[in-house]
Amino acid sequence: MGRLGLIAGGGDLPLQIARHCEESGRPLFVVRLRGFADSHMEAFPGETVGLAEVGRCIRVLKAAGCEAVCLAGNVARPDFAALKPDFRGMAMLPRLVLEARKGDDALLRAVLDEFRKEGFTIEGAHEARSDLVLGAGPLGRHVPSPGDLADVRRAFDIARRIGELDIGQGAVVCDGLVLAVEAQEGTDAMLRRVAEEVAPALRGEAGRRRGVLAKAPKPIQETRVDLPTLGPATVRGAARAGLAGIAGEAGRTLVLERDAVIALADELGLFVLGVEAP
Amino acid sequence: MGRLGLIAGGGDLPLQIARHCEESGRPLFVVRLRGFADSHMEAFPGETVGLAEVGRCIRVLKAAGCEAVCLAGNVARPDFAALKPDFRGMAMLPRLVLEARKGDDALLRAVLDEFRKEGFTIEGAHEARSDLVLGAGPLGRHVPSPGDLADVRRAFDIARRIGELDIGQGAVVCDGLVLAVEAQEGTDAMLRRVAEEVAPALRGEAGRRRGVLAKAPKPIQETRVDLPTLGPATVRGAARAGLAGIAGEAGRTLVLERDAVIALADELGLFVLGVEAP
Repeated sequence: MGRLGLIAGGGDLPLQIARHCEESGRPLFVVRLRGFADSHMEAFPGETVGLAEVGRCIRVLKAAGCEAVCLAGNVARPDFAALKPDFRGMAMLPRLVLEARKGDDALLRAVLDEFRKEGFTIEGAHEARSDLVLGAGPLGRHVPSPGDLADVRRAFDIARRIGELDIGQGAVVCDGLVLAVEAQEGTDAMLRRVAEEVAPALRGEAGRRRGVLAKAPKPIQETRVDLPTLGPATVRGAARAGLAGIAGEAGRTLVLERDAVIALADELGLFVLGVEAP
Repeated sequence: MGRLGLIAGGGDLPLQIARHCEESGRPLFVVRLRGFADSHMEAFPGETVGLAEVGRCIRVLKAAGCEAVCLAGNVARPDFAALKPDFRGMAMLPRLVLEARKGDDALLRAVLDEFRKEGFTIEGAHEARSDLVLGAGPLGRHVPSPGDLADVRRAFDIARRIGELDIGQGAVVCDGLVLAVEAQEGTDAMLRRVAEEVAPALRGEAGRRRGVLAKAPKPIQETRVDLPTLGPATVRGAARAGLAGIAGEAGRTLVLERDAVIALADELGLFVLGVEAP
């Protein structure tokens, strides 16, 4: 495999991909997005680039000899009025602002188009790190009850449909009732809300766990980027929300720190389930 | 009009209906739901009844000579395991638990069916208080810009679709992006989340307001109960979230404390818009 150009947003995923490249001997070049990339990313060869410096981003990737590009990590949607675009970024901006009005997904596709036009292959985080992908079946020792499975089905249905609407990736369902739906606040904030703002009678608790968090990739989404992830924080958040478990789509969900996820889920009494797409 | 049996949950709406009956000379009997009804409701003739005392509720309504029944105010979905049903409630419980698994709406319909079987007419809060209904057009002096109107359309589309899924009634959209969707936490909590948990670059602020809250009745919903409401707290919450305005479906949204809503919206620079259903 050729040199990977890793465009790194926030969170832990870019670091995991970079370490994997190092361990497997794959050459790597990191474009650290200013204000988003974790400081640990400075340990790898690369450059720091502003979000709207599209021309510079493409130049440094080409100068480094990258053929494939992987976008990983979180990037908050920018305030377009506050961006400092370079010449190339300036040329793209009208289209981006237009696409952004249709939702995050349209915006993302417009950005990827620009890299494809320059001849880069787009590589998904799940390709760069196939060992992170959630398989079918339970992860850890707890398994869902028949009642939990009914909630898994409804939570997935809701998560997929809100994905179709380009709202978000996650939903929490307890005994058939939709307790919360994720939009821009993210999964951790949604779980906190279930713990703190939803009436206790509507949800479970430790020792009497009820309800399920499901995360599903948006069907219209470029699944090469922005796949749903779950990690130790997801398990902790789900536990605090009294949930019985977490479900992700097998093959299209990334598990960060798998050993820690399994240990936590086993200890706290939650199932983590990979479900085949219908 | 005959004597109205007002089954009062939490919040301000039951009190407004009760006062209106008093002022217009319509005879009234209030069934105060224990743990939900506001203490002000004790000033009216009535009885306090537990949520699952269905038999007793029907008996006292009949003894009081009520022909029409109006359900108003908030009732959190109960923990069925913790209910203390009377004989009639016990007989209903299996069906209610079953319907509840399909969502709030199915549960509500099952409850109303029971009252209809007993010969009661169901009267909506918007019938008992037609003066509260939001009309078409702006309420107050601020009006939406063309950009705001695009957000109004998308926010309504999202609110209606999440209603179809029996998730909730409200959505916040800013520049085409869905910032938040309401499920069990309620509108006030959703607006607080936009103010506190959504990245500031994604939303507006005082002096540079952007984005819209839309509330729409669920299309599959019994609109005789549980119509979307907006009041001064909604305007304050929308202002804190940096929004440009609030939109509700004309004819199927209740405005509580209309004068205060208009005064606040005018002062804080928000529009409040009634929109005809498509």
